[in-house]
Amino acid sequence: MSVTTNIAHSDERTITIRGKDLVGELIGRRSFTEMVFFLVRNRFPTAEEARILDACLVTLMEHGLTPSAIVTRMLADNVPGQAQVAMAAGLLAVGDVFVGTIEGCARLLKDGMEGAATHAAYCRDVVAQHLARRAPLPGFGHRLHKPDDPRAVRLLALGAECNVKGDYARLLKQLSEELDRASGRHITINATGAIAALLLEIGMPLEVMRPIAVLSRCGGLPGHILEDKKTGSGRYIWRLVDDSIAYQPPAAE
Amino acid sequence: MSVTTNIAHSDERTITIRGKDLVGELIGRRSFTEMVFFLVRNRFPTAEEARILDACLVTLMEHGLTPSAIVTRMLADNVPGQAQVAMAAGLLAVGDVFVGTIEGCARLLKDGMEGAATHAAYCRDVVAQHLARRAPLPGFGHRLHKPDDPRAVRLLALGAECNVKGDYARLLKQLSEELDRASGRHITINATGAIAALLLEIGMPLEVMRPIAVLSRCGGLPGHILEDKKTGSGRYIWRLVDDSIAYQPPAAE
Amino acid sequence: MSVTTNIAHSDERTITIRGKDLVGELIGRRSFTEMVFFLVRNRFPTAEEARILDACLVTLMEHGLTPSAIVTRMLADNVPGQAQVAMAAGLLAVGDVFVGTIEGCARLLKDGMEGAATHAAYCRDVVAQHLARRAPLPGFGHRLHKPDDPRAVRLLALGAECNVKGDYARLLKQLSEELDRASGRHITINATGAIAALLLEIGMPLEVMRPIAVLSRCGGLPGHILEDKKTGSGRYIWRLVDDSIAYQPPAAE
Amino acid sequence: MSVTTNIAHSDERTITIRGKDLVGELIGRRSFTEMVFFLVRNRFPTAEEARILDACLVTLMEHGLTPSAIVTRMLADNVPGQAQVAMAAGLLAVGDVFVGTIEGCARLLKDGMEGAATHAAYCRDVVAQHLARRAPLPGFGHRLHKPDDPRAVRLLALGAECNVKGDYARLLKQLSEELDRASGRHITINATGAIAALLLEIGMPLEVMRPIAVLSRCGGLPGHILEDKKTGSGRYIWRLVDDSIAYQPPAAE
Repeated sequence: MSVTTNIAHSDERTITIRGKDLVGELIGRRSFTEMVFFLVRNRFPTAEEARILDACLVTLMEHGLTPSAIVTRMLADNVPGQAQVAMAAGLLAVGDVFVGTIEGCARLLKDGMEGAATHAAYCRDVVAQHLARRAPLPGFGHRLHKPDDPRAVRLLALGAECNVKGDYARLLKQLSEELDRASGRHITINATGAIAALLLEIGMPLEVMRPIAVLSRCGGLPGHILEDKKTGSGRYIWRLVDDSIAYQPPAAE
Repeated sequence: MSVTTNIAHSDERTITIRGKDLVGELIGRRSFTEMVFFLVRNRFPTAEEARILDACLVTLMEHGLTPSAIVTRMLADNVPGQAQVAMAAGLLAVGDVFVGTIEGCARLLKDGMEGAATHAAYCRDVVAQHLARRAPLPGFGHRLHKPDDPRAVRLLALGAECNVKGDYARLLKQLSEELDRASGRHITINATGAIAALLLEIGMPLEVMRPIAVLSRCGGLPGHILEDKKTGSGRYIWRLVDDSIAYQPPAAE
Repeated sequence: MSVTTNIAHSDERTITIRGKDLVGELIGRRSFTEMVFFLVRNRFPTAEEARILDACLVTLMEHGLTPSAIVTRMLADNVPGQAQVAMAAGLLAVGDVFVGTIEGCARLLKDGMEGAATHAAYCRDVVAQHLARRAPLPGFGHRLHKPDDPRAVRLLALGAECNVKGDYARLLKQLSEELDRASGRHITINATGAIAALLLEIGMPLEVMRPIAVLSRCGGLPGHILEDKKTGSGRYIWRLVDDSIAYQPPAAE
Repeated sequence: MSVTTNIAHSDERTITIRGKDLVGELIGRRSFTEMVFFLVRNRFPTAEEARILDACLVTLMEHGLTPSAIVTRMLADNVPGQAQVAMAAGLLAVGDVFVGTIEGCARLLKDGMEGAATHAAYCRDVVAQHLARRAPLPGFGHRLHKPDDPRAVRLLALGAECNVKGDYARLLKQLSEELDRASGRHITINATGAIAALLLEIGMPLEVMRPIAVLSRCGGLPGHILEDKKTGSGRYIWRLVDDSIAYQPPAAE
């Protein structure tokens, strides 16, 4: 067995990335967002595709004192001079609970688009199965943002402005209507649901849905590290938690 | 003691990021790179500042089978369905050895700019001290790219094209000339040295130098995860290493 | 909502751990293995329970150049002076693929012990379901060790020597016989299967199955870090992998 | 260049660890602590060496809601079913600030033992240099435990009970007396200082000082993961921190 790579190659004078010369064709000519697209899709995005990818990345990068931000601040305090440790620890929290639902929603949309006889029947089945298991539908609902997640509204409007087909967004809305009907109340499409649809529109495969969420969160962490240096928040969080969780002697087994 | 944050705030209908409305002012209007700048500097970049930050981010995002990429591929194989784990593990490798030298070089440049009586004397002292300790000067030298790191050449040219002051780039070149003179041979400014100078030009503080390097590397990892899924590289690497490091019974203590 | 802890409390002169005085009752009086048991079960183990826990921990701690060991060695090279980073990165690899199957097997055994009408029917159902899905039964089969994993044989013999009930070990053997019968060939109980049974015998809950596997692996990593310092293996692995995965220009999309 | 390993080798029927048969010589015969020693020192410990290593491991394994424990609990909440992620993230916090000082203190003791003309002069120099830089002496002082860290007192007494030479413990006490004299007040030897001396007594090299601290902390984390499952502490910590750090709009740059 032998494995090759299509990604990059270097020699003394050149660095080639997916067939392009890094120095002559990429640095100073392409944005970071265009490069993220290029490294996944093996072609550069149109202006509208880049705008959609930027919008998705911007949406998730910052949400205040998330678990990622809290963990990053604590690690920045405990491992000084190694900011990559603080960032990596924070990114580990981008799991199934928090923003990882992008992948679950994208899988639902892709399955519906590729395998379903009719979208109406598909939506009925998917919603019924989730309600029967009392499982939340990935991409729907939000603890705080009600009745509608304003980020999802904006993202879907942006998708409509841009010249993309819109098939995934339409299926997402169909799912949403069926979910409201079957549960007898309005449940918002949330930001991760809208992002799943838009990333599918611009051809992003399922395997990079969560990586893109991680990258987005990563873009917010430098600001948290800088603020922690000024405020000592990591140390403060430790004391706050230690003071707030009281010790009680255990009962005998 | 009490700690506050300037970063973000949410309620049911709005998400505010550093005083801006995420939905109305940021999504679809600002690029990811502009947001990274904004979250650190608390204002948006000019077009030229954004171009410089993009160039720095693009330069480091991909260099093939780096330790980060190798570790990410192995973890993607061992922890399926949790891409954030593979990415976080890979980013941990952005340490003092590999691209972390940005921070060391930036500190040298900042100290010289702020504290030195004359730049000539500062460069002489810094170079002499490093040579005396046989320590490499951060931002100089490259294992592969000789006589010059083509990325550094391009980045410094880009800085000159853009309308930035150029003080840090000039000090970097002065350090370079002194290093060549004192060591009696040409040692290239490398990519991390040029990036340190450019990031200082656009007002990035020392605390975010390594975080920006981490973010840049992070942008290359989705492509590695995708390629690993197609090629099974993580499993291949494990077998390759296990087969290449033979067991020898230890001598008695 | 308020949360308390039963684990530990300190003041100027004392540290209390689950109601015991660390200095007077634990240091120098209890082994590390006894403490691991105590922190989970809230009582100290009998000599035989401690022997079983030690045997489980010893079994998994070392298996040569595993993904964990490879990742730890690469990180030790890239992040010098921060051994916790190398160890944490290696431990991330203790996932669903490698030794995490302890938890899956333990769940099967616990479900069978608690919920099944008869063990025979339970084993038939479980084996049939896994074969139908072509899914491996957690705790069974091994890439290298055939026809039997010698570690599993030894662990189950040890369990029989020690004065534990043996219910879980019996159910594991019953599953094994049914698996052999239904698949028409012998498939070994592997080390993680035997460990799952033994840890259940000594009252370890499902939630700590994987943590104990992680702790075991952790015990092998100091030796890898030390050997890496002597041999430069982390750097060697990087070069080996980079040289072994050749670049091929990508086809157009 | 070629690299070999002395650690482990497997074939179909045997697993050899440093020349010993895992199944026949180690499982059920050696404790986890003995194996940790063996994998570092390439021989088994005497009973007294094992007792000292156990005492060091037991001392650090639990100290309540440390940064490690807090981070582990938050990750356990955010990445369910992957306990290794929660543990690895927590272990990343074992850095220069918290328990990593073992290594710094061990280096001081080793340098003094091997290179110094007289111990008295060495202690004077080391203390004077640290006081001049206002740097804390690694292994001395404790935020909470005053006037003496009771763990250090107990560990040093245990070392005296056991049949080890005691040279490092004597040098540590000499350093302590000089530190008290030069600073004009009593500063406690802390737990990490005593552990550094004891680990040196039993022949542990500097490279494994921090790895042993990491292993010790690792032994406390299963209990935190279990308690988090019962109490929901990870989610509670998130809400507590988010509620306690108020947003203030940033001033203009």
